This record gives sequence, structure tokens and C-alpha cells, in this order.
Amino acid sequence: MSAALRLGRGGEFDRLRRIFARLGRTGQSLGDDCALIRVGRTWLAVSIDLSLEDVHFRTAWLSFADIGWRSVAAALSDLAADGAEPIGVVVSLGVPGKGRGRGKGEGDPAAEIMAGVGAAARRVGAHVLGGDLVRSDRYLVDVCVLGWTVRPVRRHGARPGDGVWVTGALGGAQLALQALAAGRRPPPGLFRRFARPVPRIAAGRRLAALGARAMIDVSDGLAADAAHLAAASGIRVEIAVEQVPRFRSVPGHVAVASGEEFELLVALPPRFTDRDARSFRVATRVPLTRIGRCVRGSGVRLTDHGRAIAAPKGFDHFPAG
Amino acid sequence: MSAALRLGRGGEFDRLRRIFARLGRTGQSLGDDCALIRVGRTWLAVSIDLSLEDVHFRTAWLSFADIGWRSVAAALSDLAADGAEPIGVVVSLGVPGKGRGRGKGEGDPAAEIMAGVGAAARRVGAHVLGGDLVRSDRYLVDVCVLGWTVRPVRRHGARPGDGVWVTGALGGAQLALQALAAGRRPPPGLFRRFARPVPRIAAGRRLAALGARAMIDVSDGLAADAAHLAAASGIRVEIAVEQVPRFRSVPGHVAVASGEEFELLVALPPRFTDRDARSFRVATRVPLTRIGRCVRGSGVRLTDHGRAIAAPKGFDHFPAG
Repeated sequence: MSAALRLGRGGEFDRLRRIFARLGRTGQSLGDDCALIRVGRTWLAVSIDLSLEDVHFRTAWLSFADIGWRSVAAALSDLAADGAEPIGVVVSLGVPGKGRGRGKGEGDPAAEIMAGVGAAARRVGAHVLGGDLVRSDRYLVDVCVLGWTVRPVRRHGARPGDGVWVTGALGGAQLALQALAAGRRPPPGLFRRFARPVPRIAAGRRLAALGARAMIDVSDGLAADAAHLAAASGIRVEIAVEQVPRFRSVPGHVAVASGEEFELLVALPPRFTDRDARSFRVATRVPLTRIGRCVRGSGVRLTDHGRAIAAPKGFDHFPAG
Repeated sequence: MSAALRLGRGGEFDRLRRIFARLGRTGQSLGDDCALIRVGRTWLAVSIDLSLEDVHFRTAWLSFADIGWRSVAAALSDLAADGAEPIGVVVSLGVPGKGRGRGKGEGDPAAEIMAGVGAAARRVGAHVLGGDLVRSDRYLVDVCVLGWTVRPVRRHGARPGDGVWVTGALGGAQLALQALAAGRRPPPGLFRRFARPVPRIAAGRRLAALGARAMIDVSDGLAADAAHLAAASGIRVEIAVEQVPRFRSVPGHVAVASGEEFELLVALPPRFTDRDARSFRVATRVPLTRIGRCVRGSGVRLTDHGRAIAAPKGFDHFPAG
């Protein structure tokens, strides 16, 4: 049995270590995306992801259905990072008494949130298994996801020489967030990317089958998540920022800092080539781009056309070597 | 696959039906304690239970470790009601920034809560598998429990002629709550009952093995939970209030209304006798008392020495037939 605890942003790391130290032997595998439970020849993967109003979302920016979708997508993204196939989700909802924040044409917020939850789950073949509903001051959506995986991919398997790859394109989430924070509605494609991210379930399963050594979803930002992977694997990750695929008009330093992208960062063995990446794209319709490599050492080294650049903000609470 | 949604108190029932109607076929088994997922010859049971500050607990009344314990016990009680053996728990914590409400001699609230979580899990052989930690205005503990059961007991299997039984003694939770609300510290035994309830895992598994037809944990109050069981089974439950085992000085009408007791209400076939209940007590150290029976009809009928009495408050939003 292997435990998992998400790492909150902003210096929570020591705190979590202290917490898990209290729990004795269950804390061994701290920091993976999913907890794993052996069941015969396969593994049950479990993860939980809490989304709070005004911390993770604002009702002024997203419909209730979007809030439900996004909360579930964030949790399912942890399954994707383990190469797991979803079974279903259980969801706790906290909803204010009067349905505060209801927009035009929206019904009962709890029902709208659950409609988004159900749609996001169905999108990747998962079921809504159950839930709990409580009155609260602010909206909250807590999603526990369950999945199966025959060959779980963890954060700790990367080796020197492995290539470092990323799915999709980065920076869209940050770009949408900046627009919303400035009171502008992002263009439809960008808004959809932010409000309705599609977890990379099929891509994650295929990468597991292709021999992925270590994998993590991009939730804290590419540089920060690369640091998690580097620390777990005991290697250094080198990333060439100019090679990081990104949304149009997104600068490199934004692409490596943008959180909640829900793309996959993966270490693949040296034999995996650009040609394999093209086959991967044909099969999954998801781009896969080589952005760097694993070397001996620790932490993350970012370069822009060969010149070292500083890690993005919010990144300094991780050991970057 | 079978879904489960907890029924909040206070007229949430219609709301939940509306929500689950949005989710299509997953809503079929609405209202059971756990969702069930078939795995080979056994079932994976899953349930989630959200505890919020000032809704489910107050930091003035309970230590942070008590809050963690109680939140986990409430969730594990759902496994007990399905006759399941716990695997483990995943927990989302919301914690205010400054550790507000910290008592004398208490450390980091998040660590204290997780210590209570771990202790409650260990008490019944479960592990803490993972979690999420987020800063929030108020404390919150959301617990998802996982368990195995070969023969799940649901709410819907009771038949006319079955006996209705309850484990333990009722009313203690309400009594403790009344004392705390009045600013008094309850006597140690009563306080422990309130702060550190022990989920009836072993009792639930044994009742399943003994042929339990339908089972539910007493979380909304005996009368309300009997109504859930009656509605799911399509029968009427008759309860003789004077036979309900209760804490010293607890009146009958309090014993049938007291929520969060985490005892088990179970329908057992007519062949199950008081002698079987004595054997059960020897094996589990948990009293089991016959308090009524299942008959044709619907709803719940409460009597006191043969005279019909009214259902307790908070009970009127269920179909009492």
C-alpha cells in the first residue's frame, strides 16, 4: 500500500511532512499523485482534491457547471498521471443556503455543479458513485477519484539519460486567469481551456504502456512539478524553455510557471524518439513534445537557448539544487 | 455499480433527487450508505462524509484530534452499515492560516487533526492513504472511506416479519451536545462517547455474516434512519420506544431523535433470537437489542408501551406513511 498527499502551494511542504510523520508507516510514499492499493494483479489508485471558492475558483468567473467540471478534472488528472483508468468519483459539496451567486438562467447551484461533475466524469468514462451535500458559507467541491492501473507510473522512476516530455501546450490557464482577473472575458477557446480542461486519461494510459519511467500532472506549474519529479527520482531535470510548447502569445516564463494546466510531464527512456511522439499523437490526438532530459544531480535547471534562467516565482519553496 | 448519496438534514431530499436526476443512470441506488463497485467476487465499498466547523463541530468543544477522530468515525460508520471491512481513508483538510482556535498544549491544528484521523483509522485496522490540505476560512474535514465486503448489506432488503434490532445504547450524543451547548463539560464517559465514537465495524461484519437483511447506521436519529430503511425496503418499521436501549437519564423521545450515534439499526430474519443476540454480544462486546419489527406498509410507527407517539422533530421531511 502506498500513500499520497498533495503538496499545497506556499511552504506547506514542512507542514505536510510533520503531519505524515504523525501517521507512522502510511507516510512512506508522501508526494505521489495517487495512493495505490494492491488488488490481485492490479492496483486501485485513489486521490482526493479539494476545490474551495475564492481559493480555487470564483463564482463570478465560472458557471456552477464549470466549477463542477473543473474540480473533477483536477482530481482525474491525478489518475492520468499514474496511468490509471478511471472507475468513478465521489463528491462532497458545500453550498450556501440561498444559492448565492446564481447567474441568469442557472438553476439550483448544487444541481448545476453536479451536472458539471457528471459531464466531466462521463467525458473520460467515469461514473459518479456517490456524494455528500452540506450547507456552508462558501461553495466547496471535494472530489475523490478511483481508478485501476496494471502498471502504475510514479514520480520516482526517472533515471539519468531519460528524455523529459510534456503533453499539449502550456500557459493557457495562466492567460485565461489574467484576463478574468482584469475583468475581461477570455476568447472562447482559451476560456474553454480554463473552464473545461480535459484530463489526459488516454494519454496517461498510453504513456504508461509505452514505458514511462516517471510522470506527474502539471498542477503547480511545469518548473515546480518538474522539481517534484526530480526530488522523487533523485535526479536533476533540465528543461529548455524555448522548446516548451505554449499557447499563442504566452512567453516562456509564463508557460513554465502556469499552474492547473493538467497536462502530463513525463520521463521516457532514451529509446523514445520524436517518431514515437508522432505515433502517440496520431493515436491520442494529443501532442507530445520533448522539452529536456534527466541528468545526475538534483533540482531543476531551466535554460533559454542554452542560457540558464531563474526559476519562476512560487517555486522557491522546493529544493531546486 | 451502485451509487450512494448521503441525505442531509432539513428538507434536502428533493434537492438531492433533482441533482441525481441530472446524473442519469448512476442515480439508481440513491440513498445507500456506500457506493459499491464489483471487483471479481467481492465488492469495493466507498463513502464520503464532509464535516464542517460550526455545522458538524465546534473548536471550543473538541480538541483538533477529537475533530479528526469524529470525522473519520462518521465516515467509517457507513462502511460498518454495509458490513464492510475498512481498507483505508483519504482526507481533505481545510485549515485557517493562523491555526485559529488552537488550545493550550496543542500544536499545528492540521497535524493534530491528522493525528486524530490516524488514531480513529487504526482503531478499526484502516490506513490513512492520502489527502489534500488547503487554507480555508473555517476548519473542514472531508473523509472518503474504502472497504471490502463479500456480502454487502443494503437498506433495501428488509421484509415483513423481520425483527428490528439496534446495537449499543442511544441518546449519549444528544446528551453530550446539550451539555456542551449549555457551557457544561459532560462527564468523561459521555464526552468520550461524543468525541471519540468507535464505528461498529466488527459488529457490522458479524451482522452481515449472520444474515442481516438490511442495515443503516444511526446518523440522522433512530426514527429518521428507520424511515430511510423502511422507504428503501418498501415496508413499515414499528419501534417500541420503551425497548430502545439508552444512556442513563435519556428519555425515550431523545433516544429516538439523537443523531450521530453511529450505532447500527438492522433488520434480521425472524429466526434470529435473543439468544443469538447474547452470542453476538459475547463475540463482539457490543449489545444488540430487539426494538421492533418490520410489517407490511410504509414509514415508521413509534409506540410507547403500545400507545402510538409522534415522530421526533426533524423527521417530518421523510415519508412516514
